[in-house]
Amino acid sequence: MAAAIALSRRGRGLSTPNPNVGCLIVRDGCVVGRGWTQKGGRPHAEAQALDQAMDRARGGTAYVTLEPCFHLSPRGPRCADLLARAGLARVVIALRDPDPRTDGQGAAHLRGQGVAVDMGLLAQDAAAAMAGFVMRQTRGRPHVTLKLGLSLDGRIALSDGSSRWITGPQARAHAHMERAMHDAILVGAGTLRADAPRLDVRLAGLEARSPRRLALTGGDLPDGWGRISAPQDISTLDRVDHLLVEGGADTAAAFLRAGLVDRLLLYRAPILIGAGLGGIGDIGLADLADAHGRWRLVDERRLGEDRLEVYAAAPSA
Amino acid sequence: MAAAIALSRRGRGLSTPNPNVGCLIVRDGCVVGRGWTQKGGRPHAEAQALDQAMDRARGGTAYVTLEPCFHLSPRGPRCADLLARAGLARVVIALRDPDPRTDGQGAAHLRGQGVAVDMGLLAQDAAAAMAGFVMRQTRGRPHVTLKLGLSLDGRIALSDGSSRWITGPQARAHAHMERAMHDAILVGAGTLRADAPRLDVRLAGLEARSPRRLALTGGDLPDGWGRISAPQDISTLDRVDHLLVEGGADTAAAFLRAGLVDRLLLYRAPILIGAGLGGIGDIGLADLADAHGRWRLVDERRLGEDRLEVYAAAPSA
Repeated sequence: MAAAIALSRRGRGLSTPNPNVGCLIVRDGCVVGRGWTQKGGRPHAEAQALDQAMDRARGGTAYVTLEPCFHLSPRGPRCADLLARAGLARVVIALRDPDPRTDGQGAAHLRGQGVAVDMGLLAQDAAAAMAGFVMRQTRGRPHVTLKLGLSLDGRIALSDGSSRWITGPQARAHAHMERAMHDAILVGAGTLRADAPRLDVRLAGLEARSPRRLALTGGDLPDGWGRISAPQDISTLDRVDHLLVEGGADTAAAFLRAGLVDRLLLYRAPILIGAGLGGIGDIGLADLADAHGRWRLVDERRLGEDRLEVYAAAPSA
Repeated sequence: MAAAIALSRRGRGLSTPNPNVGCLIVRDGCVVGRGWTQKGGRPHAEAQALDQAMDRARGGTAYVTLEPCFHLSPRGPRCADLLARAGLARVVIALRDPDPRTDGQGAAHLRGQGVAVDMGLLAQDAAAAMAGFVMRQTRGRPHVTLKLGLSLDGRIALSDGSSRWITGPQARAHAHMERAMHDAILVGAGTLRADAPRLDVRLAGLEARSPRRLALTGGDLPDGWGRISAPQDISTLDRVDHLLVEGGADTAAAFLRAGLVDRLLLYRAPILIGAGLGGIGDIGLADLADAHGRWRLVDERRLGEDRLEVYAAAPSA
C-alpha cells in the first residue's frame, strides 16, 4: 500500500478535479500492474493498472489508495466494476471514498461479486497524499499549504526587501517540485508588485507542470493571472484542490486568520538576518496560550545546507 | 574518552578559572577512578580520580580530556607528576593544553618517566566541552552562547512584549540547566527593566548553581548585578569563561555585530505568532551573501513539544 500511495503522489496537481489515486496489482508475489490517476482525472488508477496487468490480474490482489468508484460517469467505466470483472481475488483499500456517490458502495459491489475486500490500511497516509480531494469532499475548499523561506531568526528578507538568496539551490528545487504538485499558487498584491514572481516550475522536464497563478488583490493583474478578493473565496475556485500560498506576510496572515492553512512548509537556512522582514503579519493573536496545540511536525529533512520542516494543522484547528 | 568528556561537563560553570577537565582511570577493563575539576578549580580531575583509584591505578590507563598540568601552582600539585608517581602505564589525552605554561610539557614529563602517552583522541569534542577555557586561552575572552526562545516564525514575544509562555516546561528546564553550566548570564537594559528577570537556576538541587548576573547597560542596576558597557568588555570579566546572553533583541544584535557569539541555542516552539517581536535587532547585514557559512548545526533534540537546535559559529566567523 505504501508503494500505491507513492504512485498516487505522481498525480498530485494533475488529476484535479479527480482524486490522485494510486493502484498496484500483485499476483504470485510479483507486481503485474501499476497506475495513478492521469492528467485531468482519466484514466483512473485502477483502469491503468488493469491495462498493464491484462489477464495476469486474475486471482491477484489490488492495492488501491481510495475506494474504487461506483458511480456512473460519462467519462469512463466504474472501477469497482472493472476490478470485479478482471477476476481479482482481493482488493485492499486505504481510504473509504468520502464522495457520497460512492461512500462504501464500491466495496459493497466488490464483495457482492465475491471479491475479498479490506478497507482502512494506511488510510491516514493515503488521505494525506490525496489531501486536496479529501478537503474538497469534506469542507468544500482546497487544501492550503503556506510556504515560507526563513532565516533561523524567522526573517524572509532584509529590511530593503531583498531575499535572494536565503535558501540554497536544493531547497529552491524542492520548492519548485512542491509547485508542480499544486493546482494553483497564490501571492498577495505586494509580492506581485515587488517581485513580479513568475511562479513557474523551473525544473528540467517539469516546465509544463507550472500551476495556475492567483493573486489576493483588488488591483490590476498581469495576463494569465487569476484573482480572489478574500481567502474564503478559495472555495469558489474551479479545479483547484491543492493551493500553495507563497506570501507575502500579509497574505500569509490573512489565510492564517481565516483558519485556512492546512500545512506549513518551512525552508530554513542556517543564517541570521537580524532586522528584516518577518514572514507572517498580524494574525490577531492576543494570548500566547491560544497559539499552542495548532501545529504538528509531520516531516523534516535536510536540503543541502538548509532544513525543511513540514507542519500539519492539528485536527481541532 | 567519551566518558571522560561527559565527566568534564559536570564541572562546567563551576571550575572557572580552571578548565573543566574530566578524568577516568581504567585497569584490567574496570573503571577504578573518576574525577572532574571541582568548584573553583581544585582538586583537579586527575587528583580526584587518583584518590579514588588508590593503588589500583598502578599499571592502569588514565583518560584525561586535557593534557595534565606541569606548571607549579601554590594551589596544588602538578598532575603530570601525580600520574607518573601513581605508576600508570599509559595516559591518553584528548586536548594538548593551550596554556603556554604546560603546552606539551605535561606529556613530555610523563614520557620521560616511562609512561606511554597518546594525545589527540576526540580532541575536538573535548575542546567543545571545555569551550570557555579554550576561548580564554586562545582569544582572551569568554565563550559566548546566545539563547533564543522562538516561535516557528521567529518571534520571541507578542507585540505587547508578553512571552509567557512560548516554550514548554521541558525546554525551560533545559534552559535552566544551561544557566547552571555558565559562569555568568547577561541581559540588556530593556530586558532588565521590562522583565526584571531573576536569571537564577530554578531546578531542584541546582539552586546554588545560579550564575552571576550581568547587564549591558549604562543605567542603574539592582543589587547583585554586574555591568559591562560594550560587548567587547567581556574580556575584562574576572572568572567568567562561559557567558550566556539571554536577550533582548538589541543585546543579541550587539554581540553578533561584534562577532562575539560562539554558540546559538534556539528553543523553538511549534507555534505561529505573526506580528510580534523578533529575537535579533539590527546586525548591520547589507548583503544576504554575507550571512551564509557562519553557522553550523551541532546538536538538536526534542524537548516536549519544542525543539532545541544548537549552532556553532563556523571557524572563520
